[in-house]
Amino acid sequence: MSQTISTVAFIGLGVMGYPMAGHLARQGLTVRVYNRTAATAKAWVAEHGGSHHKTPQEAAQGADIVLVCVGNDDDVREVTAGPQGALKGMAAGSLLVDHTTASSDLAEELAGTCREQGTGFIDAPVSGGQQGAINGVLTIMCGGDESEFARAEPILCHYARAVSLMGPAGSGQLTKMVNQICIAGLVQGLAEGLHFAEQAGLDQQRVIDVIAKGAAGSWQMENRHKTMIGDEYEHGFAVDWMRKDLGICLDQARRLQARLPVTALVDQFYGDIQVMGGGRWDTSSLLRRLRDLGRG
Amino acid sequence: MSQTISTVAFIGLGVMGYPMAGHLARQGLTVRVYNRTAATAKAWVAEHGGSHHKTPQEAAQGADIVLVCVGNDDDVREVTAGPQGALKGMAAGSLLVDHTTASSDLAEELAGTCREQGTGFIDAPVSGGQQGAINGVLTIMCGGDESEFARAEPILCHYARAVSLMGPAGSGQLTKMVNQICIAGLVQGLAEGLHFAEQAGLDQQRVIDVIAKGAAGSWQMENRHKTMIGDEYEHGFAVDWMRKDLGICLDQARRLQARLPVTALVDQFYGDIQVMGGGRWDTSSLLRRLRDLGRG
Repeated sequence: MSQTISTVAFIGLGVMGYPMAGHLARQGLTVRVYNRTAATAKAWVAEHGGSHHKTPQEAAQGADIVLVCVGNDDDVREVTAGPQGALKGMAAGSLLVDHTTASSDLAEELAGTCREQGTGFIDAPVSGGQQGAINGVLTIMCGGDESEFARAEPILCHYARAVSLMGPAGSGQLTKMVNQICIAGLVQGLAEGLHFAEQAGLDQQRVIDVIAKGAAGSWQMENRHKTMIGDEYEHGFAVDWMRKDLGICLDQARRLQARLPVTALVDQFYGDIQVMGGGRWDTSSLLRRLRDLGRG
Repeated sequence: MSQTISTVAFIGLGVMGYPMAGHLARQGLTVRVYNRTAATAKAWVAEHGGSHHKTPQEAAQGADIVLVCVGNDDDVREVTAGPQGALKGMAAGSLLVDHTTASSDLAEELAGTCREQGTGFIDAPVSGGQQGAINGVLTIMCGGDESEFARAEPILCHYARAVSLMGPAGSGQLTKMVNQICIAGLVQGLAEGLHFAEQAGLDQQRVIDVIAKGAAGSWQMENRHKTMIGDEYEHGFAVDWMRKDLGICLDQARRLQARLPVTALVDQFYGDIQVMGGGRWDTSSLLRRLRDLGRG
């Protein structure tokens, strides 16, 4: 199990990384953290112990595993392969795990770089949101070598309910993309259904009560209908993040010659929501977009 | 409860109506049946007892409740308000219940006609499919007056798990439309996700195992992914029926000024599947459409 791993580095203490790193500290691991905004890293250390560092390179020194959870491909490149990136601090035999939702190309690129310098790499995007991170019940989709996955798994289990190896480097990212593609069409369908129900003068809650257990049912219907009906979107998974993810999906789909007509359309709708000032709203705000068009 | 109702008529013994009427016979009710293809009505009577009749009008004579389950608006009009329709045979105080998925306009029209002749009307489209009908666990969405609903409910409960009054005449149909709208976007999203997974070379089953419990999860994912991955569509809810339903939805949406961009697009995709010869395939064949475009 994880007995040989005693020191980890955690790069990126955002809404996900902050609680994820916290679970590792509570398991008795020595956690070395880096965050772009240093004040957050200091606050984290004040709460959990461990040490904060000025650069990813410094945080990575002496770590058996370096965990990264930042914004996008460019952020990952900077904190890993940049001039003061973690790769410069990592010892041979250590392991880099990237939790960022990023492109599978980046994952393959980093896997290659790590191989050259005798370190390992796992791409490991997560789902389950901020609550999942806080409660330590994330789902983690991994890509990489089996032996490296076996080393990472016990650490990841400290904040995950399910950790799965999906295939070689990049496969974790590709699996996360499937997840986001399924969600995009699903949430738009749900939004159109609730919008239609409202226009028809139906009691939307009563409609959901009747249809939620049947063939139209979904996690999104179950967990988002109340706030959608209430026109509340100050929570959940932000449109800005979803657009970033869908951009990755559509870019990848172009190269794979996969056809995603509805995903592409819903991505455009999320663009409309950004124009409406809703970049921070939950993805279910597709309903507000339909409503506001009607009021315009 | 239903003690005052002893005789019912059932018009339309298709894949849904045949087992639904069977449940009523097994409850000891006297069931008078009519079916366009007379041989099916004869076979039903041979199996369940009751009586078969040459016209809907004749079947409706002496029935406390007349239940209809046919194909579309025109079929309903013919078997109810046509020259030999059920309305001509119904006594004052009796009740017409339409299980067909049809327009809410038709429901309002029939409710008016029934009111004029001293009978009652409930629109009562169902969900749950052929298996739900056979197992007597349908969901029924009703529109109509409360007192008339109260008379129909104990009869409908013989083949339903849930029977709900959604509002005045037409509200059952409108609720069913919300259900179909939610399904259209959802299934296309699922199809795009599985198509992407295949193009990316992922193990589709493993991907579903990982994401099905999370934010991308749905009844459709749970119940249709195996056959979708296996490219099997000779089951379930046929594309031809879904197109009919979506036609009703889009027509109604136009009048309600509701915006259904993805529903409209998916309706077009179902049109493609009809051109591919897949009118009888399950609605999840949206995945085959994406695949076949790639092979063309």
